[in-house]
Amino acid sequence: MVGISDTLMRELGGTVPRRTEPKPLCLKVGARIRELRTERGMSLQDLAEAGALSKGHLSSIEQGLAAITIETVERIAAALGVSPFCVITFPEDDELDRIADLARKLPKGERRKLRKELEGRTTHEPPA
Amino acid sequence: MVGISDTLMRELGGTVPRRTEPKPLCLKVGARIRELRTERGMSLQDLAEAGALSKGHLSSIEQGLAAITIETVERIAAALGVSPFCVITFPEDDELDRIADLARKLPKGERRKLRKELEGRTTHEPPA
Repeated sequence: MVGISDTLMRELGGTVPRRTEPKPLCLKVGARIRELRTERGMSLQDLAEAGALSKGHLSSIEQGLAAITIETVERIAAALGVSPFCVITFPEDDELDRIADLARKLPKGERRKLRKELEGRTTHEPPA
Repeated sequence: MVGISDTLMRELGGTVPRRTEPKPLCLKVGARIRELRTERGMSLQDLAEAGALSKGHLSSIEQGLAAITIETVERIAAALGVSPFCVITFPEDDELDRIADLARKLPKGERRKLRKELEGRTTHEPPA
């Protein structure tokens, strides 16, 4: 493969630079998207269509080879039916990420109950 | 101000296109970053230095005028001392976002307790 830098690709008019070496964060986000997609039983094609992305671009993203903007995160999240933040949540890395991911899996009623519980516990906000 | 399109700016070699019209998502992320920054009593200069960004770029981001990649999100999150997902969490928009933000404000011990509680509640994962 001929090595073309991201900068050169952009200068040549490419709007979606595809890297040959994945960056660690992109790898993690790609793996996370694949996890959420398979959790829903969606194929690459299904998610690409729902998110109005090309299948090739989505595949690059899942392999950690594409630069990802927050707009792309938002679009993929909408297609998956989750909040944008869920796409960059890494339950294995951090306790707060783990909490956010466990809360995501709760049924709606349980989630509402949890939100009310937490509003009662938190004292960092001034009373209304 | 002379109107230069993002595409033209990229072609001219600009790596950080600054928009003249903010996009809704960028506005929200910019406001969120400002919120987390002021919550910590950090100035624009403080956060720019901690995140190794120029003050001008950070200011554009906070105003919703700069394209934001997930790498930038990660860098700003590290400088703020939060998980990357916290930067794109919007507590006013969604119950799950609200839960994640309330959990963020809990003391560490409370957070651990909550994580254990949730691990007990969630039944979506197969037993180990």
